[in-house]
Amino acid sequence: MRNKISNSDVGLLRYGIREIVDVAQKIGEVDKDFTFIGENIGDPIAKGWMVPKFVKEIIVEEVQKPGDAVFGYSHSRGNPATRKWVTEYAKRFSPSSKLDYEYVLFASGLGAGISALYHMLPAGARVLQPTPSYPTHASMESFNAKADPIIYKLDPDNGWQPDLGDMEAQIVAHPDIVAILVINPNNPTGAVYSKETLESIVKLAEKYSLMIISDEVYFRMVYNGLEYAQITEIAQGRVPLVVMRGLSKDVPWPGGRCGWLEFHNVDLDADYKEYAEAVKKRVLMEVCSVTLPQVVLPKIYDHPEFEAWNRAYNAELEKNGNYIAEVLGNTPGMKVNRTNGAFYMMPLFNEGVLNDKQTLPVKNDAARAYIEGEVSKPGFPLDKRFAYYLLANTGICVVPASGFFSPYYGFRLTTLDRDEVRRKDTYARLSAAITEYTKSA
Amino acid sequence: MRNKISNSDVGLLRYGIREIVDVAQKIGEVDKDFTFIGENIGDPIAKGWMVPKFVKEIIVEEVQKPGDAVFGYSHSRGNPATRKWVTEYAKRFSPSSKLDYEYVLFASGLGAGISALYHMLPAGARVLQPTPSYPTHASMESFNAKADPIIYKLDPDNGWQPDLGDMEAQIVAHPDIVAILVINPNNPTGAVYSKETLESIVKLAEKYSLMIISDEVYFRMVYNGLEYAQITEIAQGRVPLVVMRGLSKDVPWPGGRCGWLEFHNVDLDADYKEYAEAVKKRVLMEVCSVTLPQVVLPKIYDHPEFEAWNRAYNAELEKNGNYIAEVLGNTPGMKVNRTNGAFYMMPLFNEGVLNDKQTLPVKNDAARAYIEGEVSKPGFPLDKRFAYYLLANTGICVVPASGFFSPYYGFRLTTLDRDEVRRKDTYARLSAAITEYTKSA
Repeated sequence: MRNKISNSDVGLLRYGIREIVDVAQKIGEVDKDFTFIGENIGDPIAKGWMVPKFVKEIIVEEVQKPGDAVFGYSHSRGNPATRKWVTEYAKRFSPSSKLDYEYVLFASGLGAGISALYHMLPAGARVLQPTPSYPTHASMESFNAKADPIIYKLDPDNGWQPDLGDMEAQIVAHPDIVAILVINPNNPTGAVYSKETLESIVKLAEKYSLMIISDEVYFRMVYNGLEYAQITEIAQGRVPLVVMRGLSKDVPWPGGRCGWLEFHNVDLDADYKEYAEAVKKRVLMEVCSVTLPQVVLPKIYDHPEFEAWNRAYNAELEKNGNYIAEVLGNTPGMKVNRTNGAFYMMPLFNEGVLNDKQTLPVKNDAARAYIEGEVSKPGFPLDKRFAYYLLANTGICVVPASGFFSPYYGFRLTTLDRDEVRRKDTYARLSAAITEYTKSA
Repeated sequence: MRNKISNSDVGLLRYGIREIVDVAQKIGEVDKDFTFIGENIGDPIAKGWMVPKFVKEIIVEEVQKPGDAVFGYSHSRGNPATRKWVTEYAKRFSPSSKLDYEYVLFASGLGAGISALYHMLPAGARVLQPTPSYPTHASMESFNAKADPIIYKLDPDNGWQPDLGDMEAQIVAHPDIVAILVINPNNPTGAVYSKETLESIVKLAEKYSLMIISDEVYFRMVYNGLEYAQITEIAQGRVPLVVMRGLSKDVPWPGGRCGWLEFHNVDLDADYKEYAEAVKKRVLMEVCSVTLPQVVLPKIYDHPEFEAWNRAYNAELEKNGNYIAEVLGNTPGMKVNRTNGAFYMMPLFNEGVLNDKQTLPVKNDAARAYIEGEVSKPGFPLDKRFAYYLLANTGICVVPASGFFSPYYGFRLTTLDRDEVRRKDTYARLSAAITEYTKSA
């Protein structure tokens, strides 16, 4: 190459959730007895959840329809009828919503929507990220800004609610912040934010003239007696607000790659409206997003069986999550907040519990040599060290909290596994492995 | 907003193919008699092509399978079995291919693949674009570079083959060029490049140590007695080569959003390999691409009926394209190259034929007022003026060549329409409209 084409900023793109899959692949290649138990990826399908029968029926009907419309391109911003349905849907949760269907943009999965949002911000416009973070948000923001993410703390000693004092301090310290990212229900913590918390965040956005980006892809998955407070209703007519939703998690259909962006309150600020137009242009560049899920989406959510399905799903997630919280909460050295929404949990190690001498036995010589080589790399985080040994020892794959830009050591797991025998076995073994590991040195 | 969030570079994102849809929408809103004839978008489905029955059967079978695998996430780089199939498939056309499945990356449509490629180039690394250009390539390259595209000419007086002298002159004049984009078969011209042309491009890439990006999404659609020359075979072991393919156009399944990138010759250059790793990371950020089309792709292309279907498709495209080339070639003032591949044609207006006084009658007062307002904007291209009047007068929607960064006035049409009566009517009316318009002033 006559000039360099590799990008020196690539280190800002970090995605611990999937990177550990490559580690598991390497262990599997050398250790024939290795049995992978993936607690790393939030894919309900992989953990035994079935797509409801009515969803399959709707899809098959559309695929077989003459005219083949679901095979063709869709409108660049998304199927107009579905975008109109989205505006009506928004009103069910936020009756005062004035969302215009021309400001609803479909994307091939929220990942693509996230990329478009950050890509269109001008140089030097930063979005304040929660920590522990969701890596696609934190990495894409940070890569486009060519700098480390600016973060506010979620507080494990307050049920993982945002630390509002820290949020304001960051806004004041970084005048280049133009927006606050809120992920609620939260990935990776499983927390659900109260109405009061959201009101405080909206007040901060008002006070400092900021936009709010609200990632709500898990909004239909809230339990343990909590109710989902709608930021669209709270922020109505007050601040620029971009809401992100999708059908990956609750249908569930993660492989369908269908999410959407809602630009609320576009008439509140001319510059915000121009930004929304820029994101429209960016979405247009990729021609359109996946047609089939867009077309069937209203039929799925309006189907008479959807609510019952959703209730059963939430009830089981509640039960599973509370079981796991109990097992790990009773494990010495751990601090655990139970999961109230979505299907993640982030147990933390108490301070001082981890050190860089701890290990777990790895029977296979080649696998042990590989893991030892990895964890001895300079600056290897202590919770990542634990996760690698856990993986090689038990096959259980969790994502170290440091993979979420977390200031605390811990790991994220999913509460999805429907197989009761396997789930009980997994968490009994995980609990025992924590004890063995922390006692090993 | 306390800081600007709108992006002053958004003007670099241009997509004439879809922007004219909004013009048609506005005319339709004021003129109830308006009948839209879309010759602007390359969507076979919209023009009467049916998805073959065997494709639907394969899809329905996968959707109904227990385990719901096609609903779940796929591997971040794409289904491993399908990526391995891609490497074998590459060998069918280029027997010496050493493509490694770890350097095959699936994306939710080639638009997403294109975005990822340009997004990961470091600042100041430019990719030389053909003109007339495909807007997603030219715009995304240009937006990331924060500068106008750098272009080489496709020569309408040489059957739209690349002007190799101009290509070399641009490479010499712009030392920041790191790669040459080749779109073959070409969108928007319908040209297919000879083996000699491709050999010359590879030689230039060798001479100046450049990468080649080869967009081959139409490679199975070549006719009029031509054969498709494979740049993978020509460039084997010689230069860094990224090939782009997908199933949108030939299955056809444009709404499925499934394309892939192949990084050939990764061991040739360490910096190129690092770039490929960076694109992998970028693709990982969006978790994965659409699962269903990835899973069924090998079954579709290896189906015993696929070849016959593809032959029938090409035969009809050849016939339709040649008919349109004849009608427009016989229209005074036009220069027409027939279509030899893909399903686009870009007839040009002879020099001096267009001026800024020409019009076509628009019966509806509101539609006329709207069009007059638009075309009188400063710097409005003369071919865009024609396209707007054509649209309002006849309902026929073509994309002005200026929408493809073209130095020549003309327009792009698709040769897809299967309805013989409508096709003959459309092109008779288009030919008459050209004559009426060019004579009007």
